[in-house]
Amino acid sequence: MRLRNNPKANDILAAHDDMVVIDGVQYKNQWHKLFGNNHPIYIEIGMGKGDFIIENASRYPEINFIGIEKFPSVMVGAVKKIDIQDNHLPNLKLLKADAISLRDVFEKGEVNRIYLNFSDPWPKKRHTKRRLTSPAFLEVFQDILVLDGELILKTDNRSLFEYSLVSFQNFGLYFEDVCLDLHHSEGYEDNIQTEYERKFSPFGPIYQIKTRLKGDK
Amino acid sequence: MRLRNNPKANDILAAHDDMVVIDGVQYKNQWHKLFGNNHPIYIEIGMGKGDFIIENASRYPEINFIGIEKFPSVMVGAVKKIDIQDNHLPNLKLLKADAISLRDVFEKGEVNRIYLNFSDPWPKKRHTKRRLTSPAFLEVFQDILVLDGELILKTDNRSLFEYSLVSFQNFGLYFEDVCLDLHHSEGYEDNIQTEYERKFSPFGPIYQIKTRLKGDK
Repeated sequence: MRLRNNPKANDILAAHDDMVVIDGVQYKNQWHKLFGNNHPIYIEIGMGKGDFIIENASRYPEINFIGIEKFPSVMVGAVKKIDIQDNHLPNLKLLKADAISLRDVFEKGEVNRIYLNFSDPWPKKRHTKRRLTSPAFLEVFQDILVLDGELILKTDNRSLFEYSLVSFQNFGLYFEDVCLDLHHSEGYEDNIQTEYERKFSPFGPIYQIKTRLKGDK
Repeated sequence: MRLRNNPKANDILAAHDDMVVIDGVQYKNQWHKLFGNNHPIYIEIGMGKGDFIIENASRYPEINFIGIEKFPSVMVGAVKKIDIQDNHLPNLKLLKADAISLRDVFEKGEVNRIYLNFSDPWPKKRHTKRRLTSPAFLEVFQDILVLDGELILKTDNRSLFEYSLVSFQNFGLYFEDVCLDLHHSEGYEDNIQTEYERKFSPFGPIYQIKTRLKGDK
């Protein structure tokens, strides 16, 4: 997502250090301690303005959620949303981090589920390696996930989804479920929409795949 | 595909025994001898009226094609088409057989590629086992294919395709390529349409997946 740069972004984030984590490295292998419980940890990589992760945290108090974003100016959107709703959820943290560096922030097996929602499709072939579903990223995700951890991708970008299906299989992920039109299928009524999804779903299908590291649970 | 029963079907097929094989068991491990060469063998399971397999045979003379169909009345449609076009192709045979019994007709590794085009989706959950992409059929296909053999599925049925993506991955097939809108994608200009495809593609996307038994060729 592109946002105008917000020169005050870092100040705003610093003022919300109960909820925002700028230096995640200090919490490696300490996230459960930070949350104060041993509930499962679900992360969203590229949370944008945070609609998805905030609604998840509100709906599922027995899960710890971490919304990850690399741009401070974008993170501010989520912080403001939480402020406005006066909705400081104890099971939600917002983390400034880059996907490729998540091994610095999470210990092996510290994460139970990863959400990738409407990730940048990087359509050009020479940018394949920048896609969050390319092998180098999958290796990072595999490292931080528990053995039966899940990776769930949702996108409206057909090319990214086609690429990801092949990439996931080639990498050895186990397919739990594939849906090629999330908003017009039975059984997905609990889908939580992102702000992007709400805006763009009228124009074409939303694709989703749920994968697991291992086939046997 | 449903067709009215044609009481003369068996007679018509018998009269075309240069092209039609009714008792395929006799050719098990003998197909190359029947074709008179060692070219690769590609089969289509459920050829319907034969548009796809006939056009393939015409376009690729260095490949042996076998169109398989279990209903004689349906096979007659393909026979007539070939007769009308006066187009007896030496690299094309039409075989009456049932998919689940293909081990009786082909030796292990005798087939190089299998096409499944617009297979019956069997939408009800209790009919899952009848889908040609369910595990029992995949085991048959695995047995008759060469080690690096390919299985290619094309369908307009979203539920069947969703099911098949999961089934193929769970079975261990290697994904070569996935296309979620075959008629509106670059790089698929050589697609050969079935008669069904020509009729129904205006109403929604055609899905296709190319898989291989092994990842390393």
